[in-house]
Amino acid sequence: MNNENSRKKRRFGGPKRPAGARTSSETENKNKGIPQTFNRKRNDRKSSPIGKGLNRVTPRRPKKPASKLKIIPLGGLEQIGMNITAFEYEDSIVVVDCGLSFPEDDMLGIDLVIPDVTYLKDHIDKVKGFVITHGHEDHIGALPYILKQMNVPIYSTKLTLGLITNKLKEHNLVEVTKMKEVRHGQVINLGQFSIEFIKTNHSIQDASALAIYSPAGIVVHTGDFKVDYTPVFGDAIDLQRFAEIGKKGVLALMCDSTNAERPGFTMSERTVGKVFDNLFSEYKGNRIIIATFASNVDRVQQIINTAYRYGRKVAVEGRSMVNIISTASELGYLQIPDNTLIDIDAIRNYPDEQVVLITTGSQGESMAALSRMAASIHKKVQIKPNDTIIFSSHPIPGNEKAVSKVINELSMKGAKVIFQDAHVSGHACQEEIKLIYSLVKPKYSIPVHGEYRHLIAQKRVVMDLGMDKDNVFILKSGNVLELDMDGAEVTGNVQTGAILVDGLGVGDVGNIVLRDRQHLAEDGIMIVVMTLERHSNVVLAGPDIVSRGFVYVRESEDLMGEAREVVEDALQACLDRNITDWSRIKNMVKDSLGEFIWKRTKRNPMILPIIMEA
Amino acid sequence: MNNENSRKKRRFGGPKRPAGARTSSETENKNKGIPQTFNRKRNDRKSSPIGKGLNRVTPRRPKKPASKLKIIPLGGLEQIGMNITAFEYEDSIVVVDCGLSFPEDDMLGIDLVIPDVTYLKDHIDKVKGFVITHGHEDHIGALPYILKQMNVPIYSTKLTLGLITNKLKEHNLVEVTKMKEVRHGQVINLGQFSIEFIKTNHSIQDASALAIYSPAGIVVHTGDFKVDYTPVFGDAIDLQRFAEIGKKGVLALMCDSTNAERPGFTMSERTVGKVFDNLFSEYKGNRIIIATFASNVDRVQQIINTAYRYGRKVAVEGRSMVNIISTASELGYLQIPDNTLIDIDAIRNYPDEQVVLITTGSQGESMAALSRMAASIHKKVQIKPNDTIIFSSHPIPGNEKAVSKVINELSMKGAKVIFQDAHVSGHACQEEIKLIYSLVKPKYSIPVHGEYRHLIAQKRVVMDLGMDKDNVFILKSGNVLELDMDGAEVTGNVQTGAILVDGLGVGDVGNIVLRDRQHLAEDGIMIVVMTLERHSNVVLAGPDIVSRGFVYVRESEDLMGEAREVVEDALQACLDRNITDWSRIKNMVKDSLGEFIWKRTKRNPMILPIIMEA
Repeated sequence: MNNENSRKKRRFGGPKRPAGARTSSETENKNKGIPQTFNRKRNDRKSSPIGKGLNRVTPRRPKKPASKLKIIPLGGLEQIGMNITAFEYEDSIVVVDCGLSFPEDDMLGIDLVIPDVTYLKDHIDKVKGFVITHGHEDHIGALPYILKQMNVPIYSTKLTLGLITNKLKEHNLVEVTKMKEVRHGQVINLGQFSIEFIKTNHSIQDASALAIYSPAGIVVHTGDFKVDYTPVFGDAIDLQRFAEIGKKGVLALMCDSTNAERPGFTMSERTVGKVFDNLFSEYKGNRIIIATFASNVDRVQQIINTAYRYGRKVAVEGRSMVNIISTASELGYLQIPDNTLIDIDAIRNYPDEQVVLITTGSQGESMAALSRMAASIHKKVQIKPNDTIIFSSHPIPGNEKAVSKVINELSMKGAKVIFQDAHVSGHACQEEIKLIYSLVKPKYSIPVHGEYRHLIAQKRVVMDLGMDKDNVFILKSGNVLELDMDGAEVTGNVQTGAILVDGLGVGDVGNIVLRDRQHLAEDGIMIVVMTLERHSNVVLAGPDIVSRGFVYVRESEDLMGEAREVVEDALQACLDRNITDWSRIKNMVKDSLGEFIWKRTKRNPMILPIIMEA
Repeated sequence: MNNENSRKKRRFGGPKRPAGARTSSETENKNKGIPQTFNRKRNDRKSSPIGKGLNRVTPRRPKKPASKLKIIPLGGLEQIGMNITAFEYEDSIVVVDCGLSFPEDDMLGIDLVIPDVTYLKDHIDKVKGFVITHGHEDHIGALPYILKQMNVPIYSTKLTLGLITNKLKEHNLVEVTKMKEVRHGQVINLGQFSIEFIKTNHSIQDASALAIYSPAGIVVHTGDFKVDYTPVFGDAIDLQRFAEIGKKGVLALMCDSTNAERPGFTMSERTVGKVFDNLFSEYKGNRIIIATFASNVDRVQQIINTAYRYGRKVAVEGRSMVNIISTASELGYLQIPDNTLIDIDAIRNYPDEQVVLITTGSQGESMAALSRMAASIHKKVQIKPNDTIIFSSHPIPGNEKAVSKVINELSMKGAKVIFQDAHVSGHACQEEIKLIYSLVKPKYSIPVHGEYRHLIAQKRVVMDLGMDKDNVFILKSGNVLELDMDGAEVTGNVQTGAILVDGLGVGDVGNIVLRDRQHLAEDGIMIVVMTLERHSNVVLAGPDIVSRGFVYVRESEDLMGEAREVVEDALQACLDRNITDWSRIKNMVKDSLGEFIWKRTKRNPMILPIIMEA
């Protein structure tokens, strides 16, 4: 057992390999951007002779990097969404991703949530740029809001920048924002950092892992990824480069945890294409409607490919779907054969068996195109019994009931609804996570992109590979992890949090407002108004009670009448006792009415006494 | 293809078999309760010579039953929950089940939902009794509320009545309610109906299918069921009896649709016991906490069995769990070895490896015991790293995020959380549905217990078995299906619906109140109060604006100041134009303020102008 453990443990942590063996490969390294400080350090450092624990600084190391690297996740940990992580080395900060998250169930009325970037604003002179791994909302969605607070250049791949540009246009930020396109394999220098973009696969094109070279060591950040040996477009994940960088010795690996609870391997995107082929063959005579994620360009490509093979025209519906397809095909990420795409208005000119409609709404979002078709409020598409509707998606947790509602509504119109097998995940399962760790062999593991349960699941996978549990860091947003080859520890916390966006308001809705909304939602409100004469406290008007969301007043006249008496009695009691402090009067009215209502209804509406002064 | 279809179709519909062949078996029938009218009819009737369509009445039938049977679902269709179905024949109505449903997401503040039984109240002289298939909330939960509206006897099995009694006690209804225990195999006579209880398996003990004998034919209602050949307690489902009744010729089968989308066979409850054995063996040194459905007595039995084998004491936590375990063991449905059960307070006296805690909260319900433990607000149990917590359940759709939250919280306390493989469903999958149809061979199929997608999935399964699609009735709640061996059709609709229960209020919250709650939840409320002098319209006080759930007022002073100006301007405009109609003044204030707020914030709070008269 002990032998087994120590054997396993030797598999991780670059420094335990002989230092000299790496010299030539690093000299040959084509990535000229790698800072010399880093190379010097790596070549000269000697490893600790003891196989366990941190490596000690030995006198033979001539030049130790002056500082440690700081990794500061400002969001994205203990949650799915709002991914943003600062990497800081002395006078340089680079920020990886800048995503939003969608509101939790108790965030009533909130549209979206963005990270608190106070830390970046406080160190704005250090911030060299945003480096974006891919174009999903949870990685780019906060950019327009954050760029309004700080003007920082953005670095990413072509399609990702295309999608960011669409976003910035809506906020009139394109002109003022510097954006630089990076190709996979390319390295950019940002202050003391060099960042290499590495090709990966994901449910959106042009996703990248990042090798972040700092004087204190290399950090590999996978971004969101899966291993797809047979991708629909472009190359498979660049496993060789992961291995090559691993050979250099990697300080830390930050790896996608989304599917870390799932054993096995995520299937290739191409398998979905085969499912489409089978379904198109089975439902030859039907109109086919396929709902999927707008950003999954490969999925759309496969639908188009199958449609073309089966002689169908393709129409597209849903604002985000139309936008992304247009951006992706402009930029060359989507190949649409001539005369295949038709306008949504033109579908009536073709028989059912010659039409495919690609649409948004795969998550049952109430305003999305498919949901509107299901509810018979879509202006251009009516669902009919000859429709076959394919959900090329899985419900994101929390959306199950909404999706089910749409499936029911579509089924009631006689359509055949298929909601299984026409989707694969974009995230790595356990075997893929093991593969990446086995190529990169980092000294430290920092699971990212997940709720706590997902992070801890990756920790278990990594420990199964033989990594020491003390070398796995389950961070919280705001933690400052300081690390170099000699050690790693959380040394502090910076301000982080969720800034709520509601309409045009950014941050003007907080806990107090949300608590009020929850209270109002639960049992409604009773407003007690009265007008008192200044000083004398003579009642000039009222007390009147107005309620909303409490009971249907017309059928509860007795209750409301009694409630009014209770308020009058409470007010009279105040006046009899010469209470002139209006806040005391309000409290007594509130307490009396609240108690009465609870006793009679076992409900707890918000009670809001308003005294006007005449 | 055509041959295949007609071959299949012959497999269904009792009348197509020679009528004489059934005489002896019906004479031998031990169920003396079967009314003679029914037997006479069945023996004398001749089938149509034509294999397709409805059977024609032939002159050779001496006595045709005077009336058709009416089946009127008052709830439970196009939804999971609120199961209640009336069977009516001339002067007799029997009601199968009387369940509640849990509120939908948009039913803010609602505690539970019960069916509208106006139809039963309007025909109360006909109603002979409630016949209850099993003790789950969606089959018994509305009884206390409905019994307050009508005093009707209840018939069911022992454990089911035990659970109903607990419920009626809370509502002080035990003394005034007649309850009669029925054993499986027994037949009760209710007016023109006879009802036979047939043993089935489900995720609660003592579940029954019903054979409902009427002069117009037999209807078999499966209740909620699965086929468990190796149940933990008592007998397997009485498949022989289903076959025997099928042999007699069954008019209609009403079959559970919950799992009709799932291929295959639901696993035996016993397989979960093996999983427990494995987990107890794997986590020998840990304290084990298992969350499951309180009503799943067999699951609890298996936990107790495994605990006993592994020398662990069992403690129980959560009000509903304690209640059901106590009722089930009093009635003999749960065998607890001596000295196994300990009080929750006593767990501190035992080392971790000798304790199992069975608890509620497997659905992440915020007030349930496990959720309180996870949130560190449980008074008696603190979660610690040496705990292994098993979710012996699947999240019910809609509860996924709540369950995930609890898993995260438990994991953060260092506990190992297991949420897979320790559960099986209580509902029949496709192969079991096929089995029941193949035994019962009904003329008509009426899928029940499910959303539309589930009902239609059962229809597909039944059509695969060869049944004509016109003989499958996908009903809506409120439909009146009239049927006999000569035909079946929906002839009308009766009043049905969801009555919302909020605190002590039953039905006093409807669409208007809910819409207000949704509006309040989304963007809060702005109240504009002012006091005007009668007739003169002189402003004595105000206008003042008070808001709740809109913005954090202290940080939005400018906005609120401008809003006040907008209101003052609107009011002044009214006064200038000598508008004395207060509802017009209110509308103008509301419109001006609403427009201003929307322009400035893109939010739409409820705006409530209140004018007081002095």
